[in-house]
Amino acid sequence: MAKELKNFTKRSDNYSQWYNELVVKADLAEQSAVRGCMVIKPYGYAIWEKMQRQLDDMFKETGHQNAYFPLLIPKSFLSREADHVEGFAKECAVVTHYRLKNDPDGNGVVVDPAAKLEEELIIRPTSETIIWNTYKNWIHSYRDLPILVNQWANVFRWEMRTRMFLRTAEFLWQEGHTAHATREEAEKEAIKMLHVYSDFAQNFMAVPVIMGVKSANERFAGALETYTIEAMMQDGKALQSGTSHFLGQNFAKAFDVTFMNRNNEPEYVWATSWGVSTRLMGALIMTHSDDNGLVLPPKLAPIQVVIVPIYKNDEGLKEISAKVEPIVAEFRRRGISVKYDDADNRRPGFKFADYEVKGVPVRLAIGQRDLEQGTVEVMRRDTLEKETYALDGIVDHVVKELDDIQESLFRRALENREHRTISVDSYDEFKEKIEEGVFILAHWDGTTETEERIKEETKATIRCIPFDGDQTPGVCMVTGRPSARRVLFARSY
Amino acid sequence: MAKELKNFTKRSDNYSQWYNELVVKADLAEQSAVRGCMVIKPYGYAIWEKMQRQLDDMFKETGHQNAYFPLLIPKSFLSREADHVEGFAKECAVVTHYRLKNDPDGNGVVVDPAAKLEEELIIRPTSETIIWNTYKNWIHSYRDLPILVNQWANVFRWEMRTRMFLRTAEFLWQEGHTAHATREEAEKEAIKMLHVYSDFAQNFMAVPVIMGVKSANERFAGALETYTIEAMMQDGKALQSGTSHFLGQNFAKAFDVTFMNRNNEPEYVWATSWGVSTRLMGALIMTHSDDNGLVLPPKLAPIQVVIVPIYKNDEGLKEISAKVEPIVAEFRRRGISVKYDDADNRRPGFKFADYEVKGVPVRLAIGQRDLEQGTVEVMRRDTLEKETYALDGIVDHVVKELDDIQESLFRRALENREHRTISVDSYDEFKEKIEEGVFILAHWDGTTETEERIKEETKATIRCIPFDGDQTPGVCMVTGRPSARRVLFARSY
Repeated sequence: MAKELKNFTKRSDNYSQWYNELVVKADLAEQSAVRGCMVIKPYGYAIWEKMQRQLDDMFKETGHQNAYFPLLIPKSFLSREADHVEGFAKECAVVTHYRLKNDPDGNGVVVDPAAKLEEELIIRPTSETIIWNTYKNWIHSYRDLPILVNQWANVFRWEMRTRMFLRTAEFLWQEGHTAHATREEAEKEAIKMLHVYSDFAQNFMAVPVIMGVKSANERFAGALETYTIEAMMQDGKALQSGTSHFLGQNFAKAFDVTFMNRNNEPEYVWATSWGVSTRLMGALIMTHSDDNGLVLPPKLAPIQVVIVPIYKNDEGLKEISAKVEPIVAEFRRRGISVKYDDADNRRPGFKFADYEVKGVPVRLAIGQRDLEQGTVEVMRRDTLEKETYALDGIVDHVVKELDDIQESLFRRALENREHRTISVDSYDEFKEKIEEGVFILAHWDGTTETEERIKEETKATIRCIPFDGDQTPGVCMVTGRPSARRVLFARSY
Repeated sequence: MAKELKNFTKRSDNYSQWYNELVVKADLAEQSAVRGCMVIKPYGYAIWEKMQRQLDDMFKETGHQNAYFPLLIPKSFLSREADHVEGFAKECAVVTHYRLKNDPDGNGVVVDPAAKLEEELIIRPTSETIIWNTYKNWIHSYRDLPILVNQWANVFRWEMRTRMFLRTAEFLWQEGHTAHATREEAEKEAIKMLHVYSDFAQNFMAVPVIMGVKSANERFAGALETYTIEAMMQDGKALQSGTSHFLGQNFAKAFDVTFMNRNNEPEYVWATSWGVSTRLMGALIMTHSDDNGLVLPPKLAPIQVVIVPIYKNDEGLKEISAKVEPIVAEFRRRGISVKYDDADNRRPGFKFADYEVKGVPVRLAIGQRDLEQGTVEVMRRDTLEKETYALDGIVDHVVKELDDIQESLFRRALENREHRTISVDSYDEFKEKIEEGVFILAHWDGTTETEERIKEETKATIRCIPFDGDQTPGVCMVTGRPSARRVLFARSY
C-alpha cells in the first residue's frame, strides 16, 4: 500500500501524467461527474483556504472590501462591450429555463418548455458587466470614488480541454473591480495589485515570478493593458499565475457610468480588474513537487509538522505520547500547525509514505530507542534528508528548518528559472531552443502578425514584456524590423 | 442629508417596508438587474464574513473539513431520490447550451443552437446528489467513515416571491454533508450540528432560538428527520434560521453507496446534511434593529466602536487626534475593531446619523470642551443613551459596555419571545390570537391533514416540535383526537 501510494510516473518520463497522478494521489482533487468540473478534496481545499486567507488579508491591507454580485448575467450585458463579448461568448454556460417537470412518459424529469426565460442568463465567466451595471447606481460624484471592491466567487468558462486546477470549466477565484476618478489612479491600482500578487507568489508560494505587461494580442477582452505574473514550471513551460487589468473607460462607457469631477464636469469612470484563481494550486504543485509526491512551502502547508510514533505495544505508545505531548503544545504555542499521528490502524511505513506524498514539510519520528537516548529523527520533505536531533530544543530547531525550507524552495525554483532562461537572436536558434523547455528573451517587431507567426510555427507565445531586465533596442529575430526591447517568449499552460 | 438617512418607515406602521428600507439604507444589499438576485454590498458582506469565520471555526472544532463540489448537477441525478426531485424540480435554473454566437441579424449575441447539451445541467439548489455520487468513490470500508465535510457555496432556487436575505433566488450558504457507519452516529451528528447552530445564534447573533424537530410535512425533501432552530422576529413571526437533516440511507441507496461494516457485510451508508445561509442576515436585522436603523450585536459588528471628533479648525482636530490615537491603539490591542472617523467632508451630525443607521454598537464623540475636561461622550446604539465619561479608563469602560450590549440584546429578544408565546387550547382562540403575532403552543393530532387545514385557515404552520418544554399529552385543538404533546405554531417568513 505504501509502495503503491508512491508508485508515480516520473517527471522525466511524462511530466503531464506525473502531474495528473499527483493531484489524485495527494488527495487534492478529482474529476467530477460533470464534464470539465473538478471536486476539490479536503486536503486540496485546505491549501486553497490558506492561500485565500493570506490574499484576503493583503487585499484588506491595501484598502479593499469584499462584496458579492449575482452568479447569473443577462445575455444582453455581455454584448455591451465589443471586445468583451468577443472574448467570452464562445465559452458561456447558458441558462434558458427555470423549471423542470415530471416527464409525461415517466422517465424522471424534463425541462418544462413553459418555463422558458424571456432573456437567457449566462453563468458569469467574469463579472465586469454585472458589476459595472451596479456601479452605475453607486457612483455620482468624485466623492464616491474610489470604489475598491473584491469578490471571492466561482466562475464558469466552457473549456474544451481541461486539466485539474490548470484549466477547468468551473473554477474558484477572486476578482477585484475598482473604480477611479482619474486615469493615473486606475493605472497605479492595476500595477499595485500586480505587486501584491507577485509578493504573494514569491513570499508565500515560494514561486518566483516575472512581472510584465501583455502584448495586445494576449490582453484581457475589454482591457487597455493587461499586467501579468509569469512563473516557470519544472518542465520549462510558463504558467500565467495572475493578471491585473487597466480597463480604461471601456466598461464605464458600455454601462454609462459617469461622475461629476472636481471641476463639476461629467466624466466616465476609470476602471481596473484583477484576479487569481485555483490555477495557483497548479503553479504551487508543479513548481516544487518531485517524483515522490507533493512538496509544499511551509507557509501554505495545512500540516507543517507531523509526528509519527514508532512503538511495539500500548505501553510503548504511552511512553512516547507522554514525551510528545508537551512538544505538540509548544508547536501550537508557536503558531505551527502540527499533527501527532498515533492512529493504530496504519503502520509507520504507510504513514511515512502518505505524508511524503502529501508534502508535509517536516516529519518527526520517535521510537523506543529515541526515548532512551532523548532524540528524535527529523526528515525534511524538500531534501528527503533525515537527521537525528536531541529532543531538547527540537521545536526551535524545526521552526528554523521550516524557514529554511521556505527559502530554499524559492531559491531552487529561481535557480531553475535562471538556468533555463536564455537570450536568443536568430529565429532558427529560437526554434531549436524552445524545444528544450526554456524562457527565451528575444527581439520582436511589436506586430501581432509576427507574434502569431511565431506562435503557429513554434507554439511559443509572448508571455510578457517584462518590467525589469534588458531594455536595449535591437532588431526582430523574425522580420529584422526594429525592436524596442527583448520580450519574454515561452510555451505555456 | 442626515435627516433623510434616518427617515424610515416605522416598524409599527409597516414592518415589512421598514425591513426593506433598512436593508438598503444601512448599505447591506440591493436588488440586482437579475430577477430575485441581490448584490451584497461591502458593509453587509463584512457582517456575513464575521458570521462565516465564526461558524467555520465551530465546524472545524467539531472535526469538519471544507471541500468544494461542482456548481452544476446532471439533471438525471435529481431524479434518483424521489422526494428530493419532487421538492426541487419546480425551482431549478437549467443550463441547456454551452455557447453563444453572433446574431446573424446583427443584434448582439444569441444562443448557438449547435451547442445544445445532451443532458441538461441544473444549478445546484443543494448538493446531496452530486456529493453522494462522489462519496461512492470515497467509501469502501467502515475505516473510510465517518466523512465530515462542509462546503461554503452559492446555491440557486428559482423563487417566485423574493425578499433580500430572507428569500432570494441565489443565496450564499454552507452545507455540511456527513457519512457514517451507523444510524446512531448519523442521528447524533445531526443533533450535534443543530446545537452548534443554536450556540452560534444565541451567543454570537444574540438571537434566542427554539430547537426542535419538524413535522413530516415540513421535512427537507429526502430526509427522515429535519431538525430546526426557530427564531421570533419583532413582529411575532417565526424565521427558520438553520436546519440539520438525518437523511437515513436514502441518498446512499439512490447513489448505491455501500461500505463493508465491521462484520465484513456490505451496508448502505448513513447520512446527514445541515445548512445555514445568508438568511441569517435577515434574522439578525429583524431581531434587533429599530426605527433608527440597524442594531448589531458587538460580536458580529464590522465596526464595534466609532470615534467622531468635533472640531472647529485644523488646530482643534490635531489636538483631539493626539488624544485619540493612543485610545485607538489600546482598542486594537484589546482586539476591538475601532474606526476613528476624522474625515472632513462630512459634518459630525451626518456621521452620527450614518453610524446609527449602520448599527455601530458604541459611538464616542470628543470635542474641544471634552479635551479641556478630560472627558468623552459615549453613546450606546441599543439604548441610544448618551453619557459622559472620563477619558482615563475609557477603553475598559467601553469593553464592558460591549459585553453588556451583547447580553442585553439577547435578553431583550428573549423577553419579547417569552412575552409573545402563549398556550392555547381552543381553535377559535388560536385563530384570534395568531392575528396578534405570537408563538402558540397547542395540541395537534399528529396528522398532515389537520396541519394543512390549520395552515390554510390561519396561515400558521407547525414551526417545530420543541426538544424542551411541556411534554404533557392532551387533545388536538382542531379534531379533539389525542395529542402526544403541545407543538409550536406560528406564521413565518
